[in-house]
Amino acid sequence: MTGGRFITLEGGEGAGKTTQLSRLAQALAPLVPEVVTTREPGGSPGAEAIRGLLVAGGAERWDPRGEALLHAAARRDHLLRTVWPALARGAWVVCDRFADSTSAYQGGGHGLPQDELDALHAFVCGGFQPDLTVIFDLPVAVGLARAGRRGGGEDRYERMDPAFHQRLFDRYHAIASAFPERCRLIEADGAIEAVHARLWAVVLERFPELTERR
Amino acid sequence: MTGGRFITLEGGEGAGKTTQLSRLAQALAPLVPEVVTTREPGGSPGAEAIRGLLVAGGAERWDPRGEALLHAAARRDHLLRTVWPALARGAWVVCDRFADSTSAYQGGGHGLPQDELDALHAFVCGGFQPDLTVIFDLPVAVGLARAGRRGGGEDRYERMDPAFHQRLFDRYHAIASAFPERCRLIEADGAIEAVHARLWAVVLERFPELTERR
Repeated sequence: MTGGRFITLEGGEGAGKTTQLSRLAQALAPLVPEVVTTREPGGSPGAEAIRGLLVAGGAERWDPRGEALLHAAARRDHLLRTVWPALARGAWVVCDRFADSTSAYQGGGHGLPQDELDALHAFVCGGFQPDLTVIFDLPVAVGLARAGRRGGGEDRYERMDPAFHQRLFDRYHAIASAFPERCRLIEADGAIEAVHARLWAVVLERFPELTERR
Repeated sequence: MTGGRFITLEGGEGAGKTTQLSRLAQALAPLVPEVVTTREPGGSPGAEAIRGLLVAGGAERWDPRGEALLHAAARRDHLLRTVWPALARGAWVVCDRFADSTSAYQGGGHGLPQDELDALHAFVCGGFQPDLTVIFDLPVAVGLARAGRRGGGEDRYERMDPAFHQRLFDRYHAIASAFPERCRLIEADGAIEAVHARLWAVVLERFPELTERR
C-alpha cells in the first residue's frame, strides 16, 4: 500500500462531489503515475451489488445498524479489490465517500454510537485511513435543492427529513475539527471552476510533492 | 422479547438440519401458541436479498471479513423483521443456522479471531442469544457426500476444501463445550425419525414447560 495516495471527498447531498471528483482527476493525471476514481458504496463488482441493496427501496428498508453493516461489507470488498491494489501499484485513488460518510449518516444522522462505528471500521480494515479527506461544506437547504433537481432513482437518503441532513452536516464539521491533519473543509457553493480551484489548492498544499515533480 | 423461545439448529453441510427443522416444528405445533420456522442467512426480504449475494458465485467472491459482514447485515434484518417480532408475540422460533455458523465458518473455517466476531455480534444485537442451540454432529466425509447428492445452486461453501470443513466441525465441538448451558450436541447420522427422536428429547429436556402444558 505504499506509493499511491488515497483522497476521499465527503459531504451531504448535492454538494457537487461527483463533478469535482472528475475535475480533480483531470488535474492530477499529468502529475502522478496513475489516477483511479471510485466511489462508495461501490467501486468493485461485489460492492456495487451491495450498493444496489442500499440505495433502492423505502427510507425504512434497512435500520441504521443494518445500513452500517452493509456499508462495511461493501467497503471491505472495495478496499480489497480496487483501492489497495491501486495504491500498491502507485496509483492516486480519489474516492467519492468513505468511512466518514458512515460516521456522518449512521452516526450523526441516525445516532449510532461513534465508538461502535470505529470498532466496525477496525473490523473492516484495521487502522487504514485516507491520506486526505476533503469535506464539501454547503448549507443543508442548498444541497437538498440541488440534489432534488438532479433526479435519478438513488434517492433513498434524500427522502430522509431535513433534521437528519442537519445532523450529518454538523457531524461533518465535528469530523473536520477532530482530525485536522487528515481533513480539510472547503466551501462548496459557487461555480464549478471556483470550487475546483479551492479543492486543488487544498490538494497541492497537502501534497507538496505534486509541485516539486513539475 | 418475552414469551417465545428461540431455538437454533447448527452443523456442517449435509447434517440434515433443514429436514429436522420441519419435523421439530410439527412436534412443537400442538404444544405452543405459534411456531415460526426460519433460516440464516435469510428469513426476511432484506436478508434473503443479502443471501442471494452470499450463496452464489465463486468460493473467492467474498473474503472472510466481507462474508462475516454480509452475514451480520442479514442477521440484523432477520432479527428486526422476523425473529424479535415473533418472540414478542409469544411464538417459538426455530432457525436453521445463527451466529454459531459465523463462528464456525468465518472463525473456525477461515481463521478470523473469535473476539472480533464477538464484537461484530454485539454490534448486530447486543447480548442476544438463542435459548437453545442444537448442534448436529456428523463426520465431515459423510456430510459432504450427503450435500453433494442434494445438488442445487447454493453450493459455494461445499466447494471449499475438506480441511476447511474439518476446522468448522472442530469449532462446533468447541462451541458445544464452551457453552454447555445453551448448546446440545446430537448425533446426526441415522434415519430421519431416529435423529428426530434425539432432537426432540433434547428439546423436552431443555424446556420442561412443554410437557407440563400437556
